[in-house]
Amino acid sequence: MRKFAAGRLKSALTRYYHKQTPLSSSQSRFLSSTPVLDSATPMADSSSHSSSPVTLQTINPKVLRCEYAVRGEIVNIAQRLQQELLDKPGTLPFDEILYCNIGNPQSLGQQPITFFREVLALCDHPSILDKSETQGLFSADSIERAWKILDQIPGRATGAYSHSQGIKGLRDTIAAGIEARDGCPADPNDIFLTDGASPAVHMMMQLLITSEKDGILCPIPQYPLYSASIALHGGTLVPYYLEEASGWGLEISELKKQLEDAKSKGINVRALVVINPGNPTGQVLAEGNQRDIVEFCKQEGLVLLADEVYQENVYVPDKKFHSFKKVSRSMGYGEADISLVSFQSVSKGYYGECGKRGGYMEVTGFSAEIREQIYKVASVNLCSNISGQILASLVMSPPKVGDESYESYRDERDGILSSLARRAKTLEDALNSLDGITCNKAEGAMYLFPRINLPHKAIEAAKAANTAADAFYCRQLLNATGIVVVPGSGFGQVPGTWHFRCTILPQEDKIPAVVSRLTDFHKKFMDEYRD
Amino acid sequence: MRKFAAGRLKSALTRYYHKQTPLSSSQSRFLSSTPVLDSATPMADSSSHSSSPVTLQTINPKVLRCEYAVRGEIVNIAQRLQQELLDKPGTLPFDEILYCNIGNPQSLGQQPITFFREVLALCDHPSILDKSETQGLFSADSIERAWKILDQIPGRATGAYSHSQGIKGLRDTIAAGIEARDGCPADPNDIFLTDGASPAVHMMMQLLITSEKDGILCPIPQYPLYSASIALHGGTLVPYYLEEASGWGLEISELKKQLEDAKSKGINVRALVVINPGNPTGQVLAEGNQRDIVEFCKQEGLVLLADEVYQENVYVPDKKFHSFKKVSRSMGYGEADISLVSFQSVSKGYYGECGKRGGYMEVTGFSAEIREQIYKVASVNLCSNISGQILASLVMSPPKVGDESYESYRDERDGILSSLARRAKTLEDALNSLDGITCNKAEGAMYLFPRINLPHKAIEAAKAANTAADAFYCRQLLNATGIVVVPGSGFGQVPGTWHFRCTILPQEDKIPAVVSRLTDFHKKFMDEYRD
Repeated sequence: MRKFAAGRLKSALTRYYHKQTPLSSSQSRFLSSTPVLDSATPMADSSSHSSSPVTLQTINPKVLRCEYAVRGEIVNIAQRLQQELLDKPGTLPFDEILYCNIGNPQSLGQQPITFFREVLALCDHPSILDKSETQGLFSADSIERAWKILDQIPGRATGAYSHSQGIKGLRDTIAAGIEARDGCPADPNDIFLTDGASPAVHMMMQLLITSEKDGILCPIPQYPLYSASIALHGGTLVPYYLEEASGWGLEISELKKQLEDAKSKGINVRALVVINPGNPTGQVLAEGNQRDIVEFCKQEGLVLLADEVYQENVYVPDKKFHSFKKVSRSMGYGEADISLVSFQSVSKGYYGECGKRGGYMEVTGFSAEIREQIYKVASVNLCSNISGQILASLVMSPPKVGDESYESYRDERDGILSSLARRAKTLEDALNSLDGITCNKAEGAMYLFPRINLPHKAIEAAKAANTAADAFYCRQLLNATGIVVVPGSGFGQVPGTWHFRCTILPQEDKIPAVVSRLTDFHKKFMDEYRD
Repeated sequence: MRKFAAGRLKSALTRYYHKQTPLSSSQSRFLSSTPVLDSATPMADSSSHSSSPVTLQTINPKVLRCEYAVRGEIVNIAQRLQQELLDKPGTLPFDEILYCNIGNPQSLGQQPITFFREVLALCDHPSILDKSETQGLFSADSIERAWKILDQIPGRATGAYSHSQGIKGLRDTIAAGIEARDGCPADPNDIFLTDGASPAVHMMMQLLITSEKDGILCPIPQYPLYSASIALHGGTLVPYYLEEASGWGLEISELKKQLEDAKSKGINVRALVVINPGNPTGQVLAEGNQRDIVEFCKQEGLVLLADEVYQENVYVPDKKFHSFKKVSRSMGYGEADISLVSFQSVSKGYYGECGKRGGYMEVTGFSAEIREQIYKVASVNLCSNISGQILASLVMSPPKVGDESYESYRDERDGILSSLARRAKTLEDALNSLDGITCNKAEGAMYLFPRINLPHKAIEAAKAANTAADAFYCRQLLNATGIVVVPGSGFGQVPGTWHFRCTILPQEDKIPAVVSRLTDFHKKFMDEYRD
């Protein structure tokens, strides 16, 4: 497997850098997020005069090149089918759409943590804080926490723009939470609160990317936010392949090889993206592996962009989340040694508050003048939303033993996490029981990324339908079962291999239906296309 | 005045386009947001090896070039002084900092509209909706509205990512609000909900700007979000000057002149930004003027980017807000005739909910394929925050006559707006009473933009201090009085003229102090520097 991967990879990259041969459908889909302008990409043409002055020929080609599979074509089809279910019930072979395409837990019935929502509601409408009815409706510690937060906001004005890095008192709370997690100091002035992790990633890409000569090392498969952001900022995605055969292992030798290869093509590689726990791959890095990655970044002068939004989502007893900051500091590396950005979000974990758009990045190892530039860019958008800021402080500082809400909080949290672990295992086992499917363990995050060994006949049928083979499979799955998964080609994969990403998020009572529908579909599909 | 402006303008532009002579401090500050690379701008240098791989020499020069005066140096000084007031009370000649630099009403004590906050709190914590205590704490119509909104959200999941354009039911409400405002149809599918108006502006700039060959016509003075966004996306700001002598009038002849001038330099002008009511200038466009602008955009094939975030902030009886969409439709121009984007925000108006980061853009007159591209970019960031989305629906659909909250809502709204009108008039009169200051009326928005006729001696002193003359004035004002205003050079102005932007937002009981401190300072300043 490894040798196969390396060989295929080399030829794919060679073709990519030299633009000699047409790319396969999966490659071009992945590589559409790179800076390579092909002849099909229209260039700006000021002489164009349609009824609107804005056409595909005249817009920014970086926008054209950007792709985001998680909300791509398959979701558009799903939305059409959902409307059909409403308009003409009974005409489809299923009675609901099961969205397994996106890490959006509350859309599938996961309930928010009560304490968090109590505090948010009180901060939204502080004038009820000293009313007697409020005591009956809200926990005592949520009221106390709301007062504490209001006192941290200048003028108690929850409707005002805050400091562009976020409210100082909330950053203090977050820094204390990071310290408690890592056992090493965290500085509130290193925290930049953002509307979810995505804008934070964009900010760093914007800072680091000047042109297509600037490269960002990204895992393949990767969360397509990275390829989309690199495309929008006009940089070059330098892929490093995770090794499927060793449970999506991250090999330093592969990083080195890809770095050297990119350098030899004149690419100035600026940063390394690591997603831990992995998305879409679900693996949790071992601490030793993380130390090697830190050492690599230090030696090569790369910024380490650590996507740590799944830090609470670890499901296996033999693995534990370690932040890259903790690992760096444990190696004796401080501010002067490594430039490190850690991304965190309120959207994932056991909280799953995607719609609140809260998150932060912890920026360490940058000079004061660079931090000023980051601050300046943050200030152009004034600040992130205050509810999201409050929530980010809450997830980094949940109720503690002895607080009135502690036990209900703990039960809600543990209930969600243990259920996610069971769902991951059930789905993984079900997938592995299918002929032609192999699936690594979801040690963490919210996804499985099974490999489908598609028969030649299916691949040919996909070609005839002018689509990637995994997209062909996923579309048929959706049409037959209502289950929405994302083709592997949206995340990148070793050319010639096919995968899909499936979340573990349907509620537990739906999992048997997912398993049986998927199993039935897969058997029929394989029967139809068996070589 | 007009002739003077045109002459100075021409020579400034000539120098700008031909890069022949050094620019004045105010020009270079304004023009720093343009694509012109000067020799002082460091270029990427991959050989640099400091302790951090990221230096001013290696980051994206577009980030370096971007400036945002509203949160610039003057605010940093103010924050230091505020800390000094806390640490060493009594050592400064004032006892509080009065932030007149930014349109952030609630930071200065403006209270949120109760009904809006009730609904937000209930949507944040829906499980209290059917508790009996809730009836005592919340108005009946806020409970009803919260139920209605929850029913519009799939699965009532306020913590889930929504559709990337925003929750469909909320877009329906907003479209209905636009229809009621304009008296012509609005389509919910034209609405893109965003985290405030700023990300919407960035999205359009990203779509339209491919390189420095793409120009955007912007008013001067302008809200520096525009210059910052154009700089970040690498385009060229094509200035058109508002005519101070006619109350910041927008002359079509000036638009034409600047458009032709830009075209002759090889700039492909894509869009025209109009801010109405004006920021920082406070004027409200007459309908006839708006018709001319629409006609100009249609004739020249320009996208009209209409910043209409101050649509509720009109203070003079002889002026009324008309949306550009209404004006276009009243001229018989529909989807096929003009590409128009209207930006709206929950941060301004009488609501002033800046920290909630809610807003939308209404996108009309673009082809389906271009709208797909806009949707794709929106989808990369998944969605805007749900509380901001809800609030955007509320400001476009506030309580109506007969609703339980109507009267309190109306009183809160009218109290804020009439107070803002009084504050605008008091400050305008006070400024106009000062020797060497002339100030146009604030017909709308939240700002005054007085012109300071600085003595030669002051200008020389500023030069000696290596700063723009208006920044010199504003800094001295801050140090003497604690009043924070933004130098005109941060917004752009006719070269050789000096201004500052001052919000009308300090609470009414503070206005006399602002007036007397400003008056005292100005007299002393003029006495010190009189020629």
